[in-house]
Amino acid sequence: SKVLVSTKEALYSAISEVKPGTEIVLANGTYTDVNIVFKGEGTKEAPIVLRAETPGKVFIEGVSNVQIGGSYLVIDGLYFRKGYSPTKNVIAFRLSEKEVATNCRVTNCVIIDFNQLERDKDDLWVQLYGRHNSLDHCYIAGKTNGGPTVRVDLKGNQSIRNFHKITNNHFGPRPRKGGARGETIQLGSSYTSMSPSNTLIANNLFEECNGEVEVISSKTNFNVIKNNVFYKCEGSVVTRHGNYVMIDGNYFIGDGVNKNVGGIRIINTGHWIVNNYFYNLIGENFRSPLAVMNGIPKSPLNRYNQVTDVVVAYNTYVNCKSPWQFGVGTNISQKEVLPLSEIRSARALRTEVVNNVIFNTEGDAHLIVEHDKADGVTFMANAINNQGVDFKNKDKFIVSNFELKKVSEELFVPVGISTDITPYTGFGFEAIKTDLFGVKRENSNSIGALVSENIKDPVILDKTKYGASWFVADKATVEAKKHEVTAAKGDLEAKIAAANSGDILELNAGTYAISNSLKIDKQLTIKSKDGEKAIVVADKALNSPLFQLNPYGILTIENVKLEGSGKQAAFASLKENMFNHFGLFVTGCEINNFNYVLKAYKQSFAEEIAFTNTSILNCENGIELSEETNDRGDYNVEFLTIDNCVFTNVKSNVIDYYRGGYDESTIGGNLMVKNSTFKNCGAKEKNGILLNTRGIVNVAINNNTFTNNNIK
Amino acid sequence: SKVLVSTKEALYSAISEVKPGTEIVLANGTYTDVNIVFKGEGTKEAPIVLRAETPGKVFIEGVSNVQIGGSYLVIDGLYFRKGYSPTKNVIAFRLSEKEVATNCRVTNCVIIDFNQLERDKDDLWVQLYGRHNSLDHCYIAGKTNGGPTVRVDLKGNQSIRNFHKITNNHFGPRPRKGGARGETIQLGSSYTSMSPSNTLIANNLFEECNGEVEVISSKTNFNVIKNNVFYKCEGSVVTRHGNYVMIDGNYFIGDGVNKNVGGIRIINTGHWIVNNYFYNLIGENFRSPLAVMNGIPKSPLNRYNQVTDVVVAYNTYVNCKSPWQFGVGTNISQKEVLPLSEIRSARALRTEVVNNVIFNTEGDAHLIVEHDKADGVTFMANAINNQGVDFKNKDKFIVSNFELKKVSEELFVPVGISTDITPYTGFGFEAIKTDLFGVKRENSNSIGALVSENIKDPVILDKTKYGASWFVADKATVEAKKHEVTAAKGDLEAKIAAANSGDILELNAGTYAISNSLKIDKQLTIKSKDGEKAIVVADKALNSPLFQLNPYGILTIENVKLEGSGKQAAFASLKENMFNHFGLFVTGCEINNFNYVLKAYKQSFAEEIAFTNTSILNCENGIELSEETNDRGDYNVEFLTIDNCVFTNVKSNVIDYYRGGYDESTIGGNLMVKNSTFKNCGAKEKNGILLNTRGIVNVAINNNTFTNNNIK
Ligand SMILES: [Ca+2]
Ligand SMILES: [Ca+2]
Repeated sequence: SKVLVSTKEALYSAISEVKPGTEIVLANGTYTDVNIVFKGEGTKEAPIVLRAETPGKVFIEGVSNVQIGGSYLVIDGLYFRKGYSPTKNVIAFRLSEKEVATNCRVTNCVIIDFNQLERDKDDLWVQLYGRHNSLDHCYIAGKTNGGPTVRVDLKGNQSIRNFHKITNNHFGPRPRKGGARGETIQLGSSYTSMSPSNTLIANNLFEECNGEVEVISSKTNFNVIKNNVFYKCEGSVVTRHGNYVMIDGNYFIGDGVNKNVGGIRIINTGHWIVNNYFYNLIGENFRSPLAVMNGIPKSPLNRYNQVTDVVVAYNTYVNCKSPWQFGVGTNISQKEVLPLSEIRSARALRTEVVNNVIFNTEGDAHLIVEHDKADGVTFMANAINNQGVDFKNKDKFIVSNFELKKVSEELFVPVGISTDITPYTGFGFEAIKTDLFGVKRENSNSIGALVSENIKDPVILDKTKYGASWFVADKATVEAKKHEVTAAKGDLEAKIAAANSGDILELNAGTYAISNSLKIDKQLTIKSKDGEKAIVVADKALNSPLFQLNPYGILTIENVKLEGSGKQAAFASLKENMFNHFGLFVTGCEINNFNYVLKAYKQSFAEEIAFTNTSILNCENGIELSEETNDRGDYNVEFLTIDNCVFTNVKSNVIDYYRGGYDESTIGGNLMVKNSTFKNCGAKEKNGILLNTRGIVNVAINNNTFTNNNIK
Repeated sequence: SKVLVSTKEALYSAISEVKPGTEIVLANGTYTDVNIVFKGEGTKEAPIVLRAETPGKVFIEGVSNVQIGGSYLVIDGLYFRKGYSPTKNVIAFRLSEKEVATNCRVTNCVIIDFNQLERDKDDLWVQLYGRHNSLDHCYIAGKTNGGPTVRVDLKGNQSIRNFHKITNNHFGPRPRKGGARGETIQLGSSYTSMSPSNTLIANNLFEECNGEVEVISSKTNFNVIKNNVFYKCEGSVVTRHGNYVMIDGNYFIGDGVNKNVGGIRIINTGHWIVNNYFYNLIGENFRSPLAVMNGIPKSPLNRYNQVTDVVVAYNTYVNCKSPWQFGVGTNISQKEVLPLSEIRSARALRTEVVNNVIFNTEGDAHLIVEHDKADGVTFMANAINNQGVDFKNKDKFIVSNFELKKVSEELFVPVGISTDITPYTGFGFEAIKTDLFGVKRENSNSIGALVSENIKDPVILDKTKYGASWFVADKATVEAKKHEVTAAKGDLEAKIAAANSGDILELNAGTYAISNSLKIDKQLTIKSKDGEKAIVVADKALNSPLFQLNPYGILTIENVKLEGSGKQAAFASLKENMFNHFGLFVTGCEINNFNYVLKAYKQSFAEEIAFTNTSILNCENGIELSEETNDRGDYNVEFLTIDNCVFTNVKSNVIDYYRGGYDESTIGGNLMVKNSTFKNCGAKEKNGILLNTRGIVNVAINNNTFTNNNIK
């Protein structure tokens, strides 16, 4: 029976009366502050369906969430946006600890930017409980707050051996979160790492899932990760806890430039990594195409178990730098300073790396990196074309003279590999029945990810193959419009408010007196129209920042003079409710007489902040990014760049960039300071350090001039 | 094709030529120092068989072992005795790390007392590797050296998901080992505790398997322990590591007296304990009928994980004392002195104890013992007849007035349980399809281990149902013979040598001058014939002990005077090659002027030593049991009793009883000293302690008199 409802109250009422076969149709429109408790017992033949009248025309906004409990329930075609969950989940496959969902499905839905108001307020957009549930054909993107986008929960026998299917989704960009707890999918937790999960993650596109170092964090047993595309994701598929995960027939595509794009990182026992294709990956160590970690002997439950009985077979690596890295995470050298329970000294055992193919257009002298010895690893029947370039560990490869065939921009296939190479047959290899394309391996003695050389382009980046049918994931590229601005009172404020995201405001020469903070909540460029710098002056009455960076506010400011009256910040985030990231690019500017150049408040985050060709002088404080003091590994900006700048008479916190906590798998915080001059700075610096970078993992300070600064 | 062989060389040669269907018949006789490498590829239809010409008439003796590698190989009817293995295993189901056995079988064999010469030299009598192997219908008994009797090894993918079957065996008495590493069956190790094992242990009789606190130590996942009988075993079935073990339909039978007889001890996640029958068990704490342990939060791999998601349902407990104990092993009180990684503070979570039946002939005031709170446990539909005696935790039971029906000496079945009690239905309970007898549970709402009240005696102790068909496990009880002994030179020595085990030597009054140690290598009683004590005197020339206790030497000495010349031990073990246990019972004796009263050397072990009604005087040293200084939890005697004795002028080591090492699950070393007098002792004691009991777990010193001893 079909029921059309057009208010949330009618929806709730309709749900209370569902029977097998009931179809509730949610009329097109926007529903705000909706809390759907979808409870019912459908059957396989007669499921209970809750669907949008027109898929994509039903918007769930405001403080909204969905809970699903019962059997054979389907949610179809909803669009979650402009809101956040009042609970720990946007969509939970349970009503209570014992009332879980079985054979339920969320399909053809979209969730975008459904973020909590604060980055530290963790939640999950989809949390699977129970068994045999499905999340498929959804588009999910833009999570900025803490917590994996999707998590499978295994606490309780009702949620083990779940055989959930996460398939055919498009996981769109997840911005860098800054610290941990930014996975796209997490399967269980260390507390359930002994439990059989049997979750399937298949045929999904992961695109720029950059939340943290783990795109998928598998923490349970017997999961299958198959035929997915990982496209420019700044992270890896990680078998963090749990064992016997099958990673089969996936594409890992990098751009040959971004070192943060990862591959597969292995911890624990019994995983099989077969038929995968790795292209243009240059990540190192934790982010290398194949990172095999060292374990802690007799590891605590939540730390690192030793790698044993792992099979890495029939994979193809094209133009990947040092693709195989072993002993990743070894910290034996720290054994004097760390407790024994933190020393990762247990090398991989009984592990087979066999029947793989490597092609390098430019020869690589270090195909294998042994952070610790790979003496527990068997290497057999691995073919390589290294363009005749000599390399270490030559005994672990068969040098061969095959070719590379272009199939598409992302797929280049080695062809003409000698059939004289006999594949190694390890225990259980008969289970590797097919190749990357699903072609049968029987009667073939080929190695690498593909059996056949006659290859049709699988168009792996055709986005119509993933996610909700009605949703176009590619943003239409709107051309940036230019708007001329005059120094007339209120004109700048008005033009900022009126601009569309991506527009450019050109300031005529003159002095712009500002008495209310300029609110930036979209992507804007503000620059002087001509060679002469416009001057933006903070009114003495202004007690808030000159530029207030709001969620989504990404400001590029070029060739402008900013004058404070000594008490404002030139730039600052909101103090709270920074529910999305900001960004700041300052170039060719002069910044004078502010209290702060930049003040980032707690829970605010920018993917990038850059100051170039800019003079900063006579400020009480400089660039202040040090409020993430929870010490959970968080920080305020992923990349901070200072290039060709002059800091003069900045009294304290010239640069203060902080990451607290001990989380060795958070690899973030990146500071680059180069070609810059620091003069007469730090007069009031209490700790006597000019550039504070505590806990920041990557710090490069090169080619700078330091003159007459008050430092230790 | 059948091949009859009658020498080991012919056997080796025959093995080298096996084909599917080959049957090698080993001619009746004794084969010494045999090393069988049984390698071949049989088929399901045509296995390769190596069998005894007449089962039980082919003896494997000396330094012998068997290795099996290949497929469908069968060993049938061999008798291993009077020897030991030159390797780590008597029977290994592999030839080398990668050459394992698949679908192989050892059946209808016997292994008795096949012990290494030294207790500390660990080995395994049967070690299973590979997959789908079977150990069935064997009788295995008498292991005294270190190492489980049977172990399943899971290192390497070739040995996981092994589905081995250990069925229909009779595991006969395994003596107390003294310390750890005395399991009867161990499934994997902590290093493979993440691996699926799927081993079946079914329809076996475990009789007096007293090696240590674990009869079966399950350390891997998905094992099934079903329909076994545990008869007077001083240990428990323990889910030591690994998860999701099914313990279904077993009998745990005690004698109502021995507190060391255990039941089921639970650690880790997801175990199901269903349809089991517990009778007459009075063990406490680690050895209670159901012991649910506390875990260590984020436990190291080799320590104690938290109990979660465990189901204890449909079990019956008859006359068991405080059958349910929770928080076992808690040591929160030691958190100031132990490292955090040793504190077992994590209580059981999400655990269901439901649909069980308890019957007590005498009411028990403490059915549940909470060593730590059982607040993560759900109790539902548990019926009890406690004879109207009040008890704690009454809210966790349904008091009911049913009866007990005797089926056999070991099996008493509660009948007439109210059908008004609705069984609790937890998640997955539909999988509990049958009861203890295999009767279908569908359409029944009964609780406890049995559905029906019309019960035929399952004769669980009929030994013809277990083990090798040709072997009679019950020893014919030979009547002890008495032999009269005179003081004539050499008569005592001759009578000792000639006696059969169990015999009694009666000493006529007189003085027996002994110039060579009296070698005791069987069970003997030596006593004075009449009221007057015979006097046994150590010759001045005697430099070895008066009584030399050899392997198997169990001496009872009554009403005799022993006189030394100051330099001998009255009793001592061998210094080495104590490949079986000794025992000593001294009653009504006088022991005068020895260097040691008793000296137990390293690696010697007695299950019991007792001195009663005996005077000990003028000795340099007393009872010295302190050489197990490896600190692996070993010790020299399980029970040491001193009752109504007088120690006078014993200068040091009056009693020195030592257990070293930190192994909290070794619960041994038992000292009882009562009604005794210690006078003028300890004159030369360096540490100033009269009774040294370091590391001994159970020490009771009651009602003694201490006079003028040199102690701190
Ligand atoms: Ca993570
Ligand atoms: Ca043990």
